Amino acid sequence: MRLAELSERSGVTTATIKYYLREGLLHPGRRVTATQSEYDEEHLRRLRLVRALIQVGRIPVASAREVLAALQDEDLDRNERLGTAVWALPHGPAPDENDPATEVGRRTADALMDRLGWSYGRACETPPAPAYGMLVTAIAALHRLGYPCSAEDLEPFGRALELLAVTDLDLVERYRTPEEQVEAAVALTVLYEPVLLSLRRLAEAEESRRRFGGR
Amino acid sequence: MRLAELSERSGVTTATIKYYLREGLLHPGRRVTATQSEYDEEHLRRLRLVRALIQVGRIPVASAREVLAALQDEDLDRNERLGTAVWALPHGPAPDENDPATEVGRRTADALMDRLGWSYGRACETPPAPAYGMLVTAIAALHRLGYPCSAEDLEPFGRALELLAVTDLDLVERYRTPEEQVEAAVALTVLYEPVLLSLRRLAEAEESRRRFGGR
Repeated sequence: MRLAELSERSGVTTATIKYYLREGLLHPGRRVTATQSEYDEEHLRRLRLVRALIQVGRIPVASAREVLAALQDEDLDRNERLGTAVWALPHGPAPDENDPATEVGRRTADALMDRLGWSYGRACETPPAPAYGMLVTAIAALHRLGYPCSAEDLEPFGRALELLAVTDLDLVERYRTPEEQVEAAVALTVLYEPVLLSLRRLAEAEESRRRFGGR
Repeated sequence: MRLAELSERSGVTTATIKYYLREGLLHPGRRVTATQSEYDEEHLRRLRLVRALIQVGRIPVASAREVLAALQDEDLDRNERLGTAVWALPHGPAPDENDPATEVGRRTADALMDRLGWSYGRACETPPAPAYGMLVTAIAALHRLGYPCSAEDLEPFGRALELLAVTDLDLVERYRTPEEQVEAAVALTVLYEPVLLSLRRLAEAEESRRRFGGR
């Protein structure tokens, strides 16, 4: 297909597609004349992923480029590609090593992962995974402000997300090839975050009404 | 306690506390001399909440002011105060009414809520809750990009968050007075979001290794 059709089918303007091509987020098409190139279904799929990361997930272009590089790294297997791609996503502020609450956050995160039987990316690994750092930062903030955040308090959240990870990966396995699966996994990691947060607020409103409502 | 002690116990600088006082995010202290005021435990608690919203949750000052106003509205009961406060939190971009995917998002969100037996804040209410709009926007993005997002696909996420809402409100009920409970509920809504998102990424990495790993 030509650029105009790629634009129409993806809902991304031709100017934005040209920008993604210049930035190396999209492979060049097959050149057919001096001014025209031909694009295929793989371009369309990649363009959807780029759009998910940048326009919906609001991920900086440099991070998106790193995510995409991981996805096509031939030296990595499926699990490693996915891990490396998620590693390149933004994870908020890193733990503040000058704050004593960070040490509490790290101990609590490790105790929580022990309870859950998880081992991926924790403090003893070098370097620890960014998602582990994000967890430490979040627990440190709760601790500093005096809100409940023991490993015991957090365990039900870990258990629930363990079950949801099975659901997430089941969705991913609907895709046929390993390439499509890894791309879908990254897209769903990002695109399901607002689904999760909005459903949590709605579920809390339902539960609050059940407990505290009833005028 | 004096301003200096309030600063030390909260970890918020005196300059920032003065800014919060000027912006009406914190009640004035009891004036003891022309230049000094006396603050109490309630100031400290409120300051922690303001810090959670603004510094950790990165919520704009104007939204924080609205959240706090809802918390002290004497005309509302506990459930209504909580609902109004969460309503004032940022919820990302509203659904785009010019995009046909929004209609799919809305139909899917309603079908999902039917399956879950939830009724709070949906399309038929005027105005619908911002969390409902956030859900519609998120589903529309998934639909537009061709990723799985039927009510059936989303139901396990709703079920998991329904269970976590029970855990959330159990944490809230550890607080004694209705005032403390409503404040804690808002703080935990905001502060547990990064906990949830980081645990999800870690849980997915564990599950990916189980399925796709094994070099």
